[in-house]
This record gives sequence, C-alpha cells and structure tokens, in this order.
Amino acid sequence: MVPTPTERLRALGVELPPPPRPAGTYSPVVVERGLAWVAGQIVLEEGRVAHPGLVDRDVPADTARGLARAAALQALSALRAELGSLDRIRRIVRVAVWVASSPGFGRQHEVANGATEVLVEVFGDAGRPARVALGAAGLPLNAPVEVELWAAVD
Amino acid sequence: MVPTPTERLRALGVELPPPPRPAGTYSPVVVERGLAWVAGQIVLEEGRVAHPGLVDRDVPADTARGLARAAALQALSALRAELGSLDRIRRIVRVAVWVASSPGFGRQHEVANGATEVLVEVFGDAGRPARVALGAAGLPLNAPVEVELWAAVD
Amino acid sequence: MVPTPTERLRALGVELPPPPRPAGTYSPVVVERGLAWVAGQIVLEEGRVAHPGLVDRDVPADTARGLARAAALQALSALRAELGSLDRIRRIVRVAVWVASSPGFGRQHEVANGATEVLVEVFGDAGRPARVALGAAGLPLNAPVEVELWAAVD
Repeated sequence: MVPTPTERLRALGVELPPPPRPAGTYSPVVVERGLAWVAGQIVLEEGRVAHPGLVDRDVPADTARGLARAAALQALSALRAELGSLDRIRRIVRVAVWVASSPGFGRQHEVANGATEVLVEVFGDAGRPARVALGAAGLPLNAPVEVELWAAVD
Repeated sequence: MVPTPTERLRALGVELPPPPRPAGTYSPVVVERGLAWVAGQIVLEEGRVAHPGLVDRDVPADTARGLARAAALQALSALRAELGSLDRIRRIVRVAVWVASSPGFGRQHEVANGATEVLVEVFGDAGRPARVALGAAGLPLNAPVEVELWAAVD
Repeated sequence: MVPTPTERLRALGVELPPPPRPAGTYSPVVVERGLAWVAGQIVLEEGRVAHPGLVDRDVPADTARGLARAAALQALSALRAELGSLDRIRRIVRVAVWVASSPGFGRQHEVANGATEVLVEVFGDAGRPARVALGAAGLPLNAPVEVELWAAVD
C-alpha cells in the first residue's frame, strides 16, 4: 500500500503550521478548473517576517532555503484548510520561488530546492512540480523568500 | 437579485479604458481550458508610460496603488473585448502584481491591493483571487507596476 | 493543408536543442488539466550559463533576445520529449520572460519578443501566447534570461 500524504507527513514527524490568514484583499486558495491556486506565501514569526532582507547580503542562502521549505509547508496548510485533507491532492503542478536577491546572487535554484524537496518527501513523485526560481528586487514586508504553489485536486 | 458585474461597474460609475493593444508578439487574452489568461498590463497615458520609475524612489506607493487599480481595469477591458461581456466571468482566479521596487521597499502588497480591491468591487467575492505581490528590478518601458490576471469563464 | 509544427520547424531549418535535464528537485514538464507546464528555462553552453550577468550592463539586449529565443526552443524540446511530438500542442497559452535587469533597463518586452517570435514561426497564430515581460534582480547561475511556457495539449 502506498502511504497517503497525510500518513507520510506523520511518518516524517512534520507538523503543518496554522493556515496563513490573508494580509490584504485576496483569497488564500482558489479552487477552479481542477486546480487549487494558493496565494504567495511568506514566512512570519510572531506576526513579523522571519529574517527580513536580501538573500546573501542580509540572509544566508541556507537560511533562505529553510524559509522556502517553511513557506511550502504553509501552502500545504492553506490547502488542507481549504480541501479538508491533503489526500485530495493528485499532483503538485507548478511552484514558483522568488528570492529577494543581493546584487550578484545566483543561487535562487538552491533556495528553491528547500520548497520542492519537502513536497517530494510528502507526495513522492506527485510532489515534483514544474518550477521557476527567480530573483526579486524586494518582497512584501522585506521577506527574503516567497513561494507560490498550484496543485491538481480530485 | 444579485447584480451582474456589468451592472456593478455601472453602479460604481467606473468606465473601462479602451482595450490595450499588444506592443509586441503576444495575444492580449488567450482562452483555453475554461480560463482566460490576460497578458501583463502596464498603464500608458497618451502612448507613454504613466509615472515611469521605481516605486518609493521615483513614484509614491499611493500612486503605484492607483496604477495597479488602473491596470486591473485594463485587464477587464481586454477580457470584455475578448469575451463580449464581463458577465461570462465566473471567478477571478489568480492575480500577480509586480512592483518595480527601490532598494528596501517592502510594501508591494499594499500596491497590489489597488488591483484586487477594484476586482472585489466589480465581482464581489468572485473577484477575490489568489495573489502574489512581488518586487521587480524593472518593467517594460520603466513602468512602475505590471498586473497579470487570469479568470475562470463560462 | 496547414503544415504541422514539426513540418514548420523543418521548413525553418531549426534543430531543437537536446531536452534540458533538471538541475534540482523539479520536473521538466508536468501535464495536468489539459495543459503542459514547462519548468523555467535558462540557456547553458557546455554546462555553463551562456552570457552570465545583467542585461544592458553585462549582456547586450540583442544577445538577451537571442537567448530568449534559445530558451523557448529548449522549452519546445522539453515538450517534445514529454509529449512524443510537438503536433500534440494545440496552443501556446502563456509565456513569462524574466530578464535580469541593470538599473534603469526598460526593454524587457523587446527581449521577450525573441521567445514569442519563434513560437509564432513554429505554431502560427496558435503560438501567440498571453505574455508577461519582467525584470528580475537575478536568476539562477546568473543567467540573464529565464523563460517559462505553458501549452494546451491534445
């Protein structure tokens, strides 16, 4: 028997964070055309952005990679709140990772691996999306990383 | 009776701008798989970009917020031209707002609210999309804001 | 008889590059909901990024335009490897072109034309997508251009 995403999450000992509340005029998740479109995720700690600034100059790339993982888990939390269960997710379709980048920084893809590796841990090959890794000139509240995720749902 | 988007627009006293003409090799709107994919919108005045430059250093955030609203209305104009009527729109699915950002600017989400607030005015809760707000290092013609919008259509 | 994309490609004398291998935890192409979602493409030469740096300061815009064309052809190669034939592509739906931009550079749309012009050469009007052209603060491996492409497939 292939374990479900819910079972894998438990086996990994990963606790999802609380579902994010939208900080503006948007929906955390929209479900349309068989896809769940999750809003961009930045990581807060006690109501403030964790590790604000530009990656490389202010925030080490390894820290940013951890934040990309946390943002992906936040997206899963938003999906679980909307869908009732992660087990309705059939495939992670596309993930975008934006990295607020210092001049000359070129390791956005390594930061992005933080997001997609945890998706593969939870969903297996169904968690391996098409991906873009990009450098932003800044992100809301000076977050160093923002992750956007779309999933095909049953 | 719930008012239609066309009726709401009239009640709001909002006149859509003329549909944008593509400035390059692309389509203003592609309709596929039940979704209308609108090309990125920047705001021109008399053929020139309105308020060119970086937000914060050259363009106040409030001005940029107004441009995000204008760009969203431009996207609706493109949709109306393609679909015949805004009343075929069932849901605004996803909006991306890119803000050409000065170093240190972190209020991209406030600028993005300019786009999504007017969508909620016109479509009610169906106008509340999943959203990403992002800082760009520059935009075509040095526009300060670009808005991309996708809608589920009947 | 309308020529197929495969026939047009041959008539143009264009040879697709080898399909890109993913450099990280992601899929080159995901097919879901009637759409083929291709991962972001950067152009390598002999395993290294071609023309690294920022467009305008380090890389002329014309060079970047050629790289956008090459990245679009790479996306087609990924699609052909996944789908078996380009002739299963019904429409190029949406293309994003990110240009690593020097301060003040505002011709991202001209760079983006390099990607979309070749798509129209190969697919005719079905190759004319909705498009966004954007300035990035940096891209993986300091690539000057990254192209993301989605197609409706039969």
